Amino acid sequence: MGVNKCNYQIDFKQRRIQDEFWTPFQKLVKNVVVPYQQAVLEDKIEGVEKSGAIQNFRIAAGLAEGDFYGMVFQDSDVAKWLEAVAYSLELEPNTELEAYADEIIEIIGKAQQPDGYLNTYFTIKDPDRRWQNLQECHELYCAGHMIEAAVAYYEATGKKKFLTIVQRMADHICNRFGPDKHRGIPGHQEIELALLKLYRATGEGRYRDLAGYFLDERGTEPNFFAEESEKRQWNHFGIDPEDRLYAQNHAPVREQNTAEGHSVRAMYMYTAMADYAAETGDAAMANACRALFNNVANKRMFITGGIGSTVEGEAFSIDYDLPNDITYNETCASVGLVFFTRKMLDLEPDANYADVMEKALYNGVLSGMQLDGKKFFYVNPLEVIPGVSGKLAGYKHVKPVRPGWYACACCPPNVARLPHITSKICLGRNR
Amino acid sequence: MGVNKCNYQIDFKQRRIQDEFWTPFQKLVKNVVVPYQQAVLEDKIEGVEKSGAIQNFRIAAGLAEGDFYGMVFQDSDVAKWLEAVAYSLELEPNTELEAYADEIIEIIGKAQQPDGYLNTYFTIKDPDRRWQNLQECHELYCAGHMIEAAVAYYEATGKKKFLTIVQRMADHICNRFGPDKHRGIPGHQEIELALLKLYRATGEGRYRDLAGYFLDERGTEPNFFAEESEKRQWNHFGIDPEDRLYAQNHAPVREQNTAEGHSVRAMYMYTAMADYAAETGDAAMANACRALFNNVANKRMFITGGIGSTVEGEAFSIDYDLPNDITYNETCASVGLVFFTRKMLDLEPDANYADVMEKALYNGVLSGMQLDGKKFFYVNPLEVIPGVSGKLAGYKHVKPVRPGWYACACCPPNVARLPHITSKICLGRNR
Repeated sequence: MGVNKCNYQIDFKQRRIQDEFWTPFQKLVKNVVVPYQQAVLEDKIEGVEKSGAIQNFRIAAGLAEGDFYGMVFQDSDVAKWLEAVAYSLELEPNTELEAYADEIIEIIGKAQQPDGYLNTYFTIKDPDRRWQNLQECHELYCAGHMIEAAVAYYEATGKKKFLTIVQRMADHICNRFGPDKHRGIPGHQEIELALLKLYRATGEGRYRDLAGYFLDERGTEPNFFAEESEKRQWNHFGIDPEDRLYAQNHAPVREQNTAEGHSVRAMYMYTAMADYAAETGDAAMANACRALFNNVANKRMFITGGIGSTVEGEAFSIDYDLPNDITYNETCASVGLVFFTRKMLDLEPDANYADVMEKALYNGVLSGMQLDGKKFFYVNPLEVIPGVSGKLAGYKHVKPVRPGWYACACCPPNVARLPHITSKICLGRNR
Repeated sequence: MGVNKCNYQIDFKQRRIQDEFWTPFQKLVKNVVVPYQQAVLEDKIEGVEKSGAIQNFRIAAGLAEGDFYGMVFQDSDVAKWLEAVAYSLELEPNTELEAYADEIIEIIGKAQQPDGYLNTYFTIKDPDRRWQNLQECHELYCAGHMIEAAVAYYEATGKKKFLTIVQRMADHICNRFGPDKHRGIPGHQEIELALLKLYRATGEGRYRDLAGYFLDERGTEPNFFAEESEKRQWNHFGIDPEDRLYAQNHAPVREQNTAEGHSVRAMYMYTAMADYAAETGDAAMANACRALFNNVANKRMFITGGIGSTVEGEAFSIDYDLPNDITYNETCASVGLVFFTRKMLDLEPDANYADVMEKALYNGVLSGMQLDGKKFFYVNPLEVIPGVSGKLAGYKHVKPVRPGWYACACCPPNVARLPHITSKICLGRNR
């Protein structure tokens, strides 16, 4: 099959979802979740996991003293939150929130290095080790989230400052990676889908082409992760570079037809693949997307749109392995499934994509946040056993109640940015 | 309630079970399992886990050169096999097998130290560390299995040599542990039930009393395992001495009323408790046994008589936690449940005990061995999922097919010695 690209485009400022279900939810995100997460990121909430994420930027910017705190990808929490802020401002202007966001963007700009590089972990802790560990260190992943946030903020406010910052980082990446430059693929996909957004926001084809490069370089020989690991002789998490499935590095993406490995990585990659296929009319890429969608939707997805059946590697396992009580079903994976299916709808208007998108959005994603907007599930089981879940071997990842935050806090801000953009994803083409 | 001790005793040589079910099984054990396990213990079977267990005795006896091989409790595999041999000889004389067993017993005698100490691990590897790590190093456990084997061999053949060997070891233990001697309790219960058998075989009350001491010392303060750990400053497996539940060290045994911790340890202890209560008329001990039986039978046992719901610590978990696909249900635990319920029948003739005994024997135990007698389950799930069991996180302990042997080979010889003694357990009082 070829690609029947949907060529309509609706300015999302021209549309609003207003109904009994989403309006209260959007208000919750705007009035509770965004301020709550701001307070968490600023380490102002007692009794939840410390974040340190905004303070890291202050330190990297030279505005504060101290050590980097948190995961190597801590920056992405700030980025996802800024993206949620952008959608919030779109729904309803808020001068105070916008002023605060501008202030954070100002700090981010100051944390950026003269060559455009932007990542507080390496800037604060380990400047000599930049770009040596793409497999584990998430520099491209964090850059991707910054780009998504900046594009959203630009579209919401018309302000270009943040976009300029991420363009400088994107150009830094363009100058480093690609054919005839350094070889590289991200350990956690995200930059690909972000570069496609940046391409549409700026019209600069080099961002689209770099997204295509990262997609096509994956799964090729020799194994890039083994090559860089051998070269640098140090590890961050200790992820085995020879585990080809974990980051979908087992085959060229056009040849992949079963959903393998870390489910969030997979979804972000499939999203970029579908987007790239729709943008470029690449029929082989579109076919791979259809095969991957069919495998997920028909054989590896829970009735809730939850995906990723095993805690080990937060990953897909095998066809029809759908254990209600010990599944992983990461919130971010369902968020990713919404992105992927939405992009499939751009590729071709098939109701199957819309059905799965809706299923994942209403079930797999929303279960990730408590109705008060202040507690979150990372793992979304379909069955919780009192006294067993969260306690016994095999069930330890299954929390019986939602905590207020996580040391690895990818999910809460991902939920915050997602239902908010229902206006964008439910009607017409989204960016 | 008091204790209505069953005071009948039937010489097991006077009885035989002969039926369509057990006769073929006994023949299988006699003709296939015993010779197969002999070959495994002598490292003569290709493609199965190496045992080294008999060679360890040769090395300790000065008859061979080499290093100790295997687990710290490797000796017990030989002991359990010799016990199965004894029952086999009872069923049918076999001069060749008896001559071989006598040869092994001869070697065991030579491996015994001048002071009666008998344990190849410490004799070969670490003679200076004897009796320093009761929690982890299984010296008393191995001694217990040797005693059981020697009593069975004496009863089957009338030969006293093996019994004399284990009496010297038992006396060594009696001289070391007890009131006004060294304080101590075994990390893995077994010695208690064995000492009671030795008491009945020899009439020496000190063995019964030492069994009572080991039972009553458990669960007392200060925590013995923490005390010895603090004193010796080295570990073998790294089991946390402060985990009081794991080895039922959380409360005095007379106060225990829920089945906790490692299920095999629990069963061997309950067996000794019931036996001790029946022997001595100890009403408090009998009451504890009844409470423990009720908790196991009514709330923590599978429909197969399988027990121990969690892989973590090979242990009981909580009431009604009975997951078919990820349970542990160690074969040895069901063997232990047969022992325990059999002793409860000695205590009082209540059909509930017989029902559970039968359920465990016909289901939880027999599933541990393939019909050809050459492959064994250590873990006995009620549900196996192709491609998942044995592979994915949470299911790794659940082997979909029976292997030929195990590095930790407690279960195969436990099955071998068990159905064989159906003649003993199904009728009348057993020793």
